[in-house]
Amino acid sequence: MKTDVLIIGGSAAGLVAAMTAKSCNPEKGITVIRKEEIVMIPCGIPYIFGSVMTSDKNILPDTGLIKMGVKIIVDEVITINKKEKNCQTKKGEVIEYEKLIIATGSNPIKPTWLKGKDLKNVFVIPKDKEYLDYFHKQLENLQKIVIIGAGFIGIEVADELNKIGKDVTVVEILPRILGTAFDEIVASEAEQCLLDRGVKVNKGIGIKEILGSDKTEEVLLNNGETLKADAVILSLGYVPNVELAKKAGLALNEFGFIEVDQYRRTGEADIFAIGDCSEKRDFATGKLSKTMLASTACAEARVAAMNLCKLSTVKTFRGTIGIYFTAIGDTAFGVAGLNKEMAIKEGFDVVTGSFTGIDRHPGKLDDSHKQMVKLIVAKDNGLILGGEVVGGTSTGELTNVIGFMIQNNMTVNDVIVSQIGTHPMLTASPAGYPLIKAAEIVAKALKG
Amino acid sequence: MKTDVLIIGGSAAGLVAAMTAKSCNPEKGITVIRKEEIVMIPCGIPYIFGSVMTSDKNILPDTGLIKMGVKIIVDEVITINKKEKNCQTKKGEVIEYEKLIIATGSNPIKPTWLKGKDLKNVFVIPKDKEYLDYFHKQLENLQKIVIIGAGFIGIEVADELNKIGKDVTVVEILPRILGTAFDEIVASEAEQCLLDRGVKVNKGIGIKEILGSDKTEEVLLNNGETLKADAVILSLGYVPNVELAKKAGLALNEFGFIEVDQYRRTGEADIFAIGDCSEKRDFATGKLSKTMLASTACAEARVAAMNLCKLSTVKTFRGTIGIYFTAIGDTAFGVAGLNKEMAIKEGFDVVTGSFTGIDRHPGKLDDSHKQMVKLIVAKDNGLILGGEVVGGTSTGELTNVIGFMIQNNMTVNDVIVSQIGTHPMLTASPAGYPLIKAAEIVAKALKG
Repeated sequence: MKTDVLIIGGSAAGLVAAMTAKSCNPEKGITVIRKEEIVMIPCGIPYIFGSVMTSDKNILPDTGLIKMGVKIIVDEVITINKKEKNCQTKKGEVIEYEKLIIATGSNPIKPTWLKGKDLKNVFVIPKDKEYLDYFHKQLENLQKIVIIGAGFIGIEVADELNKIGKDVTVVEILPRILGTAFDEIVASEAEQCLLDRGVKVNKGIGIKEILGSDKTEEVLLNNGETLKADAVILSLGYVPNVELAKKAGLALNEFGFIEVDQYRRTGEADIFAIGDCSEKRDFATGKLSKTMLASTACAEARVAAMNLCKLSTVKTFRGTIGIYFTAIGDTAFGVAGLNKEMAIKEGFDVVTGSFTGIDRHPGKLDDSHKQMVKLIVAKDNGLILGGEVVGGTSTGELTNVIGFMIQNNMTVNDVIVSQIGTHPMLTASPAGYPLIKAAEIVAKALKG
Repeated sequence: MKTDVLIIGGSAAGLVAAMTAKSCNPEKGITVIRKEEIVMIPCGIPYIFGSVMTSDKNILPDTGLIKMGVKIIVDEVITINKKEKNCQTKKGEVIEYEKLIIATGSNPIKPTWLKGKDLKNVFVIPKDKEYLDYFHKQLENLQKIVIIGAGFIGIEVADELNKIGKDVTVVEILPRILGTAFDEIVASEAEQCLLDRGVKVNKGIGIKEILGSDKTEEVLLNNGETLKADAVILSLGYVPNVELAKKAGLALNEFGFIEVDQYRRTGEADIFAIGDCSEKRDFATGKLSKTMLASTACAEARVAAMNLCKLSTVKTFRGTIGIYFTAIGDTAFGVAGLNKEMAIKEGFDVVTGSFTGIDRHPGKLDDSHKQMVKLIVAKDNGLILGGEVVGGTSTGELTNVIGFMIQNNMTVNDVIVSQIGTHPMLTASPAGYPLIKAAEIVAKALKG
């Protein structure tokens, strides 16, 4: 068969690329080819274990694509022929394309060195419904769960399993949870939330081996300690799924991601790459980065799709800011851009300011929650490099406010004269709005 | 007595001006003079009738001011002597100042033409604790409440009184509620929320007279209809409280607000004016505006205080954007900048786009809420002129995101390549984020 645009991969990036491509070029034939019959909402996966109870309630619907006239093929591309501009599939099809978008995503890490990794009841967290359903079913009769890796997904799964009554321990080799996303103080606060809810956290210690005869029985840690484990969940991060691109001769960067330019084009003019499999560069430093986020993937997808047929210098991807957040119980934790440690490590001279208030006013309102905002600002020019938020349910969008400040190159002076809207039932008070107060503290420190 | 900086008025604007002035000039003596022993959180006032039950839980605390070393005087300035740079007070004090900030606020409108306005159980909604406590107490034994004026405060009070079991009718002379803040469709949706909750709404009809012998019994409408009313609440807006400024010879604009420049200085170099009593100009049109918001007042206060002793061209107030929101039950309504009708009326050629999604992903999560975002964009250059949001508790901060887009002169192209963070428990999905989807719709229309 023949299609104008072929998109390999049907998760967030593939879906958004297809919808945007069709929207921008209604006359073109757009085809998505994917392995999965049913696609999972990627970020929703941790919640199938508790809050939504089943993967059936976590499905990325095809209706949008179908309604727009995008063709969906459930099959697997096994070879990309750059010269002939076609792809061969597992089912034996040959699909000719004009433009190709690679959105093959990432796969969970299962370290080859880890003894016992293939025992029964050792799981990873891929975006594969069939696997997740099996995994979920198996957990039913397993009580003691050890999760290796306290990144976002690790702690979200931990919290959900704890919620349904499992005995959950998280093991993290770093001295704190949530990787290096947050400054230490925020990371400790997140840890305390987890502990308060009953999740056990074992930091600063790596895993040596998973013990058991046919199924997992214990986890042996680097310090010689063992933890009883009816199940072990490996949440050690993801690696870009680039086998296909590699075989096709597309260049990979030193972290193993498909190299792309600001339009998300690979070295091959008609082939684009987006999402977890494609190169990321940090917004502030321009350095290669490994950040994998569905939200970033979707932004990349929009940029690729808008530049497919004609390039536009105003529709480029300017580097990953890294805006992300999670919720543990009623408390949410958000970060945008660089945290203080990263900024210093990169060589920025920074000033930070933080302010803690309440996200309603008066604070006596029932659903009020503490709200902390921290800003990380470049000392020489006052540019906002990053921010962190701890608060209630508005933490996500408030972190997005900081994301927009960074994307717009706002200085701390711009922020302190900014207008924000406030309302008793929805935000902090105008007189004690933590974002503005934090900016004031930084501005004062800069004046010194 | 003598003070470096004298601030007249202790509500949001006065408080923020005092804190900012002290923070910027720790060596200066800062004094706030205000009539009220105890200050109300202005935007929290509607909620004393229901959600927080008492004005005692809606107090703007003095602790921040006191801790910073700001002096608070409870007294009333009766004369400002510009030449001598002093103020005379009701209690007979003369206070000399170097810099003066007028933050005298606004008073509720009680139309002189309205017959029956002085009957017992006719109330207005000032920021006066003593009055509010009396008003609140009186309401205890009054069941049928008629509220005249369906602006933000009118409908918030209506919803709160309805919540505690009163029989509430709102009368609005305009054909819709919430003034002209929202486009008609959003205003209708807000009205439907109110109706669903049991508040009666009487639109397109003005009030002619309040009937009763000594206390209010009925409201006579312009169409001859009458409504039984044990109490009538006049929520007809506010007029700037400028008696003092007028007496001092400071210039007022044609709407009766104290004229100021971008530093919030009046014609008199050492006298600044901020908040409800001071001039507002629209961000997009530069035209005089009557918008009174505590959040805007606080931004003006920061600007005035930062420019008190030394001017800074990067710390100016660039015009009121008008970012505001309210909540009716679980649904919140937000607006930033111009709505479509206003934009067209002002002479802009606009394109709008709106998208309705869900504020969680998967949408099956318990606390998910419909989320609608509408963007109003200038046709000639793609600049974001305004936006509206209907959604759950994150509506406030999401409206603030739009506010920042406007303040940063972002175009719709900037928005569609923007990075936003998303999380299942906190926001819409990255593939169906209504703000981005609305921008895409506008971008497509602009291209078309």
